[in-house]
Amino acid sequence: MKIDFEKAGGLIPAIAQDAATGTVLMMAWMNHEAYQETLRSGRAVYFSRSRNKLWRKGEESGNVQMVKSIHVDCDADTLLLKVEQIGGAACHEGYQSCFFRKLNSTGEVEAIEGERLFDPKQVYANAK
Amino acid sequence: MKIDFEKAGGLIPAIAQDAATGTVLMMAWMNHEAYQETLRSGRAVYFSRSRNKLWRKGEESGNVQMVKSIHVDCDADTLLLKVEQIGGAACHEGYQSCFFRKLNSTGEVEAIEGERLFDPKQVYANAK
Repeated sequence: MKIDFEKAGGLIPAIAQDAATGTVLMMAWMNHEAYQETLRSGRAVYFSRSRNKLWRKGEESGNVQMVKSIHVDCDADTLLLKVEQIGGAACHEGYQSCFFRKLNSTGEVEAIEGERLFDPKQVYANAK
Repeated sequence: MKIDFEKAGGLIPAIAQDAATGTVLMMAWMNHEAYQETLRSGRAVYFSRSRNKLWRKGEESGNVQMVKSIHVDCDADTLLLKVEQIGGAACHEGYQSCFFRKLNSTGEVEAIEGERLFDPKQVYANAK
């Protein structure tokens, strides 16, 4: 199955979804190398656009994502990973999901969904 | 809430998830105009990169997406839409989800998930 990394300049979107609950956890990017390492290792590996290098999810926080299954879309240019999120929180802000802000019909933040499962300051204290 | 459309050149990823079942249906792109029209109309409007214009999802197939809620991620550059998928199928190939192909650990297609809910040839016969 050939994934089309070239369409968007080498990076494709990868959606991580909690395999047990169906909660959409986050969206990040993969290049070919990140995808191959994800397949090999069974852990989600992304490509960080800001750091311009492979991002082994959880390498700092310990909140790795164990990949349960990988799905590719009809255009072969987007991936869906069903994962077990170790630590329960995918978001660097401490929430289960990065999509913790719900908007109202005018685009303003209406609600914060979920609780902070960790304090970012504490988890990333030694990292940067 | 300011969405960061500029980071990726004016287009941001928007994930559509079935509001009732949690199934991830598809990923598409939105520019500022598509986002604004989605907010206003309550139906998902994307931006088609291949056609280079607004894509009112379902305008050809009738399979519109009624937006139940919109969520923005921690970086304010990705949206999650929880939708009611009219017709049951989000994918132009007739499946509920565009992610109907499950890969195995070497990246080959292992299974097709779900049934074709419509015949693409029939639905799009008059469109192109």
